[in-house]
Amino acid sequence: MTSIPAILDEIRQKMACAEDRGKAASYIPELASADLQKFAISVCLPNGEQWSTGDSRTPFSIQSVSKVFTLAIALGRYGESLWRRVGREPTTKAFNSSQELEVRKGIPANPFVNAGAIVTTDMVLKGASPAEALGGILQFLRVAASEEDIHINRDIAASEKMTGHKNWALAHLLSAYGNLDHSCELTLGTYFHQCAIEMSCEELARSGRFLAGFGKKDDLVRQSSVKRINALMLTCGHYNGSGEFAYRVGIPAKSGVGGAILAIVPGKASIAVWSPGLDEYGNSLLGTAALEELSNRMEWSVFS
Amino acid sequence: MTSIPAILDEIRQKMACAEDRGKAASYIPELASADLQKFAISVCLPNGEQWSTGDSRTPFSIQSVSKVFTLAIALGRYGESLWRRVGREPTTKAFNSSQELEVRKGIPANPFVNAGAIVTTDMVLKGASPAEALGGILQFLRVAASEEDIHINRDIAASEKMTGHKNWALAHLLSAYGNLDHSCELTLGTYFHQCAIEMSCEELARSGRFLAGFGKKDDLVRQSSVKRINALMLTCGHYNGSGEFAYRVGIPAKSGVGGAILAIVPGKASIAVWSPGLDEYGNSLLGTAALEELSNRMEWSVFS
Amino acid sequence: MTSIPAILDEIRQKMACAEDRGKAASYIPELASADLQKFAISVCLPNGEQWSTGDSRTPFSIQSVSKVFTLAIALGRYGESLWRRVGREPTTKAFNSSQELEVRKGIPANPFVNAGAIVTTDMVLKGASPAEALGGILQFLRVAASEEDIHINRDIAASEKMTGHKNWALAHLLSAYGNLDHSCELTLGTYFHQCAIEMSCEELARSGRFLAGFGKKDDLVRQSSVKRINALMLTCGHYNGSGEFAYRVGIPAKSGVGGAILAIVPGKASIAVWSPGLDEYGNSLLGTAALEELSNRMEWSVFS
Amino acid sequence: MTSIPAILDEIRQKMACAEDRGKAASYIPELASADLQKFAISVCLPNGEQWSTGDSRTPFSIQSVSKVFTLAIALGRYGESLWRRVGREPTTKAFNSSQELEVRKGIPANPFVNAGAIVTTDMVLKGASPAEALGGILQFLRVAASEEDIHINRDIAASEKMTGHKNWALAHLLSAYGNLDHSCELTLGTYFHQCAIEMSCEELARSGRFLAGFGKKDDLVRQSSVKRINALMLTCGHYNGSGEFAYRVGIPAKSGVGGAILAIVPGKASIAVWSPGLDEYGNSLLGTAALEELSNRMEWSVFS
Repeated sequence: MTSIPAILDEIRQKMACAEDRGKAASYIPELASADLQKFAISVCLPNGEQWSTGDSRTPFSIQSVSKVFTLAIALGRYGESLWRRVGREPTTKAFNSSQELEVRKGIPANPFVNAGAIVTTDMVLKGASPAEALGGILQFLRVAASEEDIHINRDIAASEKMTGHKNWALAHLLSAYGNLDHSCELTLGTYFHQCAIEMSCEELARSGRFLAGFGKKDDLVRQSSVKRINALMLTCGHYNGSGEFAYRVGIPAKSGVGGAILAIVPGKASIAVWSPGLDEYGNSLLGTAALEELSNRMEWSVFS
Repeated sequence: MTSIPAILDEIRQKMACAEDRGKAASYIPELASADLQKFAISVCLPNGEQWSTGDSRTPFSIQSVSKVFTLAIALGRYGESLWRRVGREPTTKAFNSSQELEVRKGIPANPFVNAGAIVTTDMVLKGASPAEALGGILQFLRVAASEEDIHINRDIAASEKMTGHKNWALAHLLSAYGNLDHSCELTLGTYFHQCAIEMSCEELARSGRFLAGFGKKDDLVRQSSVKRINALMLTCGHYNGSGEFAYRVGIPAKSGVGGAILAIVPGKASIAVWSPGLDEYGNSLLGTAALEELSNRMEWSVFS
Repeated sequence: MTSIPAILDEIRQKMACAEDRGKAASYIPELASADLQKFAISVCLPNGEQWSTGDSRTPFSIQSVSKVFTLAIALGRYGESLWRRVGREPTTKAFNSSQELEVRKGIPANPFVNAGAIVTTDMVLKGASPAEALGGILQFLRVAASEEDIHINRDIAASEKMTGHKNWALAHLLSAYGNLDHSCELTLGTYFHQCAIEMSCEELARSGRFLAGFGKKDDLVRQSSVKRINALMLTCGHYNGSGEFAYRVGIPAKSGVGGAILAIVPGKASIAVWSPGLDEYGNSLLGTAALEELSNRMEWSVFS
Repeated sequence: MTSIPAILDEIRQKMACAEDRGKAASYIPELASADLQKFAISVCLPNGEQWSTGDSRTPFSIQSVSKVFTLAIALGRYGESLWRRVGREPTTKAFNSSQELEVRKGIPANPFVNAGAIVTTDMVLKGASPAEALGGILQFLRVAASEEDIHINRDIAASEKMTGHKNWALAHLLSAYGNLDHSCELTLGTYFHQCAIEMSCEELARSGRFLAGFGKKDDLVRQSSVKRINALMLTCGHYNGSGEFAYRVGIPAKSGVGGAILAIVPGKASIAVWSPGLDEYGNSLLGTAALEELSNRMEWSVFS
C-alpha cells in the first residue's frame, strides 16, 4: 500500500492538471479574486501524525465550515433542546433559500443551511456580547486546532454585511417567525464575522480531530454529540449536493464557499482540503474530487 | 460487554412494553390488519453467526425494502448510466409525492422514493417478461438469503394494484416525461409484485449480508456498488425521515411500509427488524427505536 | 365608428400578415398537423346579428373550451355544492400540473385547469352512462348554438386516451384523494370525448350567447350562474396566463389547446376566435392578439 | 327599485347584526386595537352624487389600498416598461410570502402583493427624496379625492418599520436579485409611510372616481391605464382570495389590512367600505359581504 504522503502528493499533482477548476464565489470581492490554482490538502491521524501538501499553510476564509463549530458549541450548551429551533433533515433547496424557511414556518431544515446556522449563532450569542460570542468560537477553534494564531478577517466580514441580502432576508424571516432572540443586526453581525474566520488547511485539519475521535476531544464535546454532528455533516454538509457527495466520497464533510472542505473519517482521520473553485452547488470542485480519490485509495468510506 | 443475544433479548422485552406502537399502514386490508404486538429482530455477523429474537420466522411483506435489491440488480446491469434516469438526492417530500417528480421533470429524486423504484423496476424489466424480471429479483434474494423458500404474496400484489392510485399517478407522470420504457401496466404490475415479496426477519437479515461485506457477496454485486447502495440507504432510505434516522441511529438502512427495516453496519453486521406500527413518515416506529438502542449499545454508528 | 364587419376584416388581414404564429399543440398527431395559416373570428350581438370572417365554418377541436359548458351543466345540477370538490382560485402552475393538486389535497384550484374539469365531468357522469353524459353535453351545445350538427371527433378522443399521461396522472391523484366518483377509465374516457367535440367558429360564437345574456339563455342556466362562470373565465380561463389576458384584453374568455377562444362581453357580444398556433401558456397566440384588437376598438373591456 | 341611500342603509343594518366580524390585524398595536363594531360604506356616482352611511368620516389606515395609487403613479411615469420589474399574474401564496419571489427570481407576481408594491414604491422614489415621493403620493390622493386634508399616521409607519420583518425580508430578497434601485431602508421607509396614509371612507370613495371613469380623471392617468389597473384589481386585488371575490362580488377592488376595500364599477360607481375585522386571507370580512350585497342589488357585477 502506498504511504499517505505519497498518495496526497499524487492527488495534488492530479488536481494541478485539472482543466475545469470551478468558479470562485463572486458575491464579495475578497472571494471573487481567489486564485483558482491554489490547492491544499492536510490529513491528521490518530497517532498524532499530520501530512500535508500544496498551499497548506495559506490562510483562507472558512465560511460555512464554521457552522460545524458553532453547532458543536450550541449542542454542548443546549443539548437536544437545540432541535426545537432547527431541524435535522436534508434539503432540496439552495443553501441560502428562503422558500423552505417559509414552508417550515421559521424552523430551518438543518444547522448547515444558512438559516440554520444563523439560529445556532443566535443561540451561542445568548447571554454574551457579539465580541464574547466570537471570542468563544475562536477559543474553541484554537483549542481544537492546537493553534493560537486564528483570527477573523474583518474586511470579509464587512463585505458580507454589505452585500449579504439573502442572509438579511433569512434573518428577518426568522425574526418574523419568532426564531431569533436577538436583533437581525446583532445575530447576523456575529454570523458574518464567524464565517470570516481565517485558517490554513493544516489548522483546519487539526481542528476536526475532535470529531474523528482523537485530539483534544475531551475538552470540547461529548462523544454522543460527535456522532450526531458527523451524521448531520454526511446528510446535510453539502447542501443540495449532499446525496451526491455521500455517494461519491462516503465521508461526513462540511464545505464552505471559500473553497474549504472539512472531512471526518471516524476513528481514522481528520482531513481538510482547499481549492477556491466551486461547483454548481457551491462546494469546492477539486476539493470534492480530491476527497473522492483519497477516500477510494485509503478505503475510508464509512459505507464499506 | 453484554453478548449480542442478551442485548437483543433486552431490546425485545423493552419493545414489548412500549405503549405507543405506531399505526399499521391502512391503504390495503392485508397490511391494515397487521398485529401491532409483533416484533422481531435478527442480526448476521461476519463470522457466520446469526442471532434472532421475537417473531423472527414470521413472514411479512417486505414492501419498499425490495427497492434495495432492485437497485442492486439495476446498478449491476447499467452501472453509472442508471443515474441518467434517477437522482441520488434526499427529498423533503413524502415517499409517494408527485410534486417533486414534476419539478424534476420526470427524474425521481432517488431510487428509494416510489417513483425512483418504479424506474429501477422498469430498467430491470428491459428485455424480460414481468415473470422473468420477478424471477430474477426472487433468485437474487434467494442467493443473498441462502434460502430457497421466498415467494410473492399475490393477494397483496393484487390489492396494491387496485388501490395504488398515487403509484399509478407516478407511473403516468414518468411516462409523460418519457422515463418509462414499458407501459404503466407492465412496469407497475411488476413493481407491485416485487413489493409483495414475503420474507421473515431471519431471511431478510441474511439477504443484507452482501451489503455488509460478507456472505454471498461475490455472486451479487461489485464492492464499489456496495458502498454506494449503503450511502443511498443512509441519505434516502427513510424518505423525509432520513436525516432524523441518521442522527439517531447512524446506520445505513431501508424501511418498508410493512414494518420491516434492513440495516447495514459495513463490515460488522446485517440487521433486520420488524414491527408493523409506523411513524408519521411511514417507517417502523419500534423498529427504529430497536435499531437506535442496538446501535448505541454495540457502538455500531458509522459516525463514531 | 367603423362597422363590426369592417373591423373584423381588418383584424383578419392584420393577423394574416403576422410572422410569429405560435406553435400548434404537439402531443397528438391530429392537433400537431394543424395549418397555422388558419384564422377565423365570429361575433354574435344581442340583436341576433352574427358577423364572421376567415375560416369561420371550418370545424376544429374545441378542447378546453368545453370545460365552460361542463361547468355550466354541473353548476345547474349541483349549485354551490359543486365547490366542495373544486376551488375557484387562479393558479400559477401549468394547466396540467399535478403539483398543486397534491398541495391542495385533491381539490383542484378551479374548474378550468384539467384536474378541475375532470372533476366536473365526473359530476356530470353521476347517474348516467358515458354515452348519456356526452349526449347531454352535446345537446346543451346544440341548443346553445342553435345548431344540430355538432359532433365528437372520435379519432382525437382515441389519441388523447393513448397519450394523455398527465391527465391519467391527474385522474389517479384525484382518485387517491377520493375526489372521483367513477373509475379513472370512465371519467377520463368521457373527458377526452368532451374535449374532442368539433365546432366551427360560427357555432362556437353562438354557443356562448347564453353567457353574454342573450340567445337561448333561459333554457340553459340561471342568471346567477352566468355571472359566476364569466368571473371564473376572467380569473382562470387562460391558466397561468389569465392575469396577462385580463390586463391586455379585459374580457372573460376560455381558451382551448386546439386554438379556439370563446370570449364573452356581458350584454354586448359573444365572440369566438380560432387560430391553431399557441403561445407559451397554451393559449392561441393570434386569437389573443385579435381579441385584444377587437376589445380596444369596440371598447369592450369590462374594466373601462 | 330601491334608492341607493336606502340600500346602503339596509346593508349597514345587516352588517351591524353580523356575529362573525372577523379579526383585526394583530401585528401592530395601532391596528390590533381596532373597534370591530366600526362599519362604513360610501358610494360616488358619475353625476357627482355621493352617498354614505355608518362611520364614513372616521379616518383609518388605508394600508394596501395605497398600492393602487402608487401603481397609478408608476404606470403614468414608466408606462409598459414597469412590467420588466413586476408581473401581472395572480398568486396562490399569501400577500407577504417570500417563496414565490424566490421562485420568480426577484420579479414579484403582481403590484398588489407586498413585494410588488415595494418595487412600484422604489420606482416612484427614483429621482426624489422619500419626503418628495410621499408628497407626490399624497398630492395624487388629494387631487383624486378633492380633499386637502389627507395625512400620514407616523405612529403606524413607525410601528410597521419596527415589526415588519416579512417586509424587510422581501426588500432584501428584491435587493439580492437586483430589483431595488434604492437601499432597503429608503424604499421600505417610504413604503411603510405610504401604507400609513389615513383616509375616511368618504374620502377613499372619492379618490377612486378616476378609476371608475369620472371625477378628476384627466389630471391623473390615461384611460388605457384605468382599465389595466382595474383588471389587476380584479385578478390580484384580494391576494389569494381574489378568485373568490371575483366569483362572489364581480367588481375590481383592492383591500387593505386596515379593513378598507376600494371597489370600482367602471362607468357606474366608485365605492369604499371599511370594517376592521379580516377574513383568513387578510381581507375585510364584512366589507366583502357588504360589497357582495351591494353588487347583487345594484346589478353592478362586471360579469352580467
